[in-house]
Amino acid sequence: MTSRRNFLQQSALGLAGSLSLPLVSGAAPAKKGNTPILTGVAGYTFAKFDLEKSIAMMKKVDIKYISIKDIHLPLNSSDEKIESVKKQFADAGINVYAVGVIYMKSKEAVDQAFAYAKKVGVPLVVGVPNPELLDYTESVVKSTGIKIAIHNHGPEDKLYPSPKNVWDLIKDRDEKMGICMDIGHAIRAGADPAEVVKLYKSRLYDLHIKDVSLAAKDGKAIEVGRGVIDFPALVKALQKIRYQGVCSLEFEKDMSDPLAGIAESAGYFKGVVKSLS
Amino acid sequence: MTSRRNFLQQSALGLAGSLSLPLVSGAAPAKKGNTPILTGVAGYTFAKFDLEKSIAMMKKVDIKYISIKDIHLPLNSSDEKIESVKKQFADAGINVYAVGVIYMKSKEAVDQAFAYAKKVGVPLVVGVPNPELLDYTESVVKSTGIKIAIHNHGPEDKLYPSPKNVWDLIKDRDEKMGICMDIGHAIRAGADPAEVVKLYKSRLYDLHIKDVSLAAKDGKAIEVGRGVIDFPALVKALQKIRYQGVCSLEFEKDMSDPLAGIAESAGYFKGVVKSLS
Repeated sequence: MTSRRNFLQQSALGLAGSLSLPLVSGAAPAKKGNTPILTGVAGYTFAKFDLEKSIAMMKKVDIKYISIKDIHLPLNSSDEKIESVKKQFADAGINVYAVGVIYMKSKEAVDQAFAYAKKVGVPLVVGVPNPELLDYTESVVKSTGIKIAIHNHGPEDKLYPSPKNVWDLIKDRDEKMGICMDIGHAIRAGADPAEVVKLYKSRLYDLHIKDVSLAAKDGKAIEVGRGVIDFPALVKALQKIRYQGVCSLEFEKDMSDPLAGIAESAGYFKGVVKSLS
Repeated sequence: MTSRRNFLQQSALGLAGSLSLPLVSGAAPAKKGNTPILTGVAGYTFAKFDLEKSIAMMKKVDIKYISIKDIHLPLNSSDEKIESVKKQFADAGINVYAVGVIYMKSKEAVDQAFAYAKKVGVPLVVGVPNPELLDYTESVVKSTGIKIAIHNHGPEDKLYPSPKNVWDLIKDRDEKMGICMDIGHAIRAGADPAEVVKLYKSRLYDLHIKDVSLAAKDGKAIEVGRGVIDFPALVKALQKIRYQGVCSLEFEKDMSDPLAGIAESAGYFKGVVKSLS
């Protein structure tokens, strides 16, 4: 686990500064032993907002880590555009720790995703390569040194409904291939997020934190703490495995006016982490 | 303690329904043993908003208990006005559990405050009677059966800077006289909120929940969880004494645009309560 932490902190690309994962003061990480649990955000949360408004919301809720979504930085962006967006985040004290979620339906899309991650300067792609592309994806994580965390998307998802569907396909592959567990989609698919953490700890590279109204297909997005997910159990499991990644809120309720829900969700999660540290 | 709980739940005035303290489903109270810890709001939080906007914010953050402030229902309101405001809260599923903070600088003001509480139909006045009025206030709590929770206001306050200043003046008086500990002002005055809970448990009738940036006079209002107050310690103390009152957020930062801060604060507090239950 130490090597993974170093990997994230130093970045596979040897970049320093805002794009690695230093423990930013003011990020209010809580510790269990020597393990911080960092609260971040998945860029899709801000799907209906431009970068400036997204950053303003992150500052308001004091969240300093983001997995950037192509909505805010298209995959085919010029180097100048990438530098400009990186600077906007850096100026706001925000660390871009990953890119994604990126869907990959062809080898070219895999190449594009990892080239993009390299240009953005992050050690992690959160993505969904079609299963038939996993051999190719494995060759690319090996050649680039950039990890992939494959995202599960619930019972409707034909590719990866549950974290187990990801695990089964990557567990015997290069260790740079892992899971981004979306806990809301996981529980809708019948998985227990805390159990998933323990079962697949060796390959758990990212988390989408949210809550849902039901542990079933029809479960809807809801503020963290108001739904069915047992957050104390989840955080205890993360502490137990000494999780080294980011816990990124992905808030999908009230997407045209999400600030209060993001704030309540971030507050709840931080309160749980603090209480159990 | 059972009698106090019954007192609050049934109301001194024999009123049923929305003005007593039933355990509203959806209020997400967490339990330790048989003790819920309820999250409410102090009406002053909404000082810059009318009743309609205040209620909309409470619904947004799913808070169902309020100590109503005269800003939203003046002390000299007609019976019709009082009924109308009570109906607005009841229609929104919100319980008015107290009135205040009410400042009382004369016997007439004491009479007015308790008559107002009686008309509103609550068993508790959160207030600040001048110390020379405590004999008179004691006679009024006896005659009306309505409790008072005296509010501390920090080092600048000449009357009751710290909960101890309240305690010293009420501890030998009628048991319907108690404390509303404002934890932010308490810590600025050098008191440890968790210790105060344990020391004065027999007279702790209300709480103003907030956070401050410093445990000193210059401490400023800040979102719950970002400041210096140890909320897990506070909640553990409340569980230990089996606190039967409400924990009312009083958010005093960004008062013209408080929703995100209220939401983050409520989320954090609920997350702590849930984790320790």
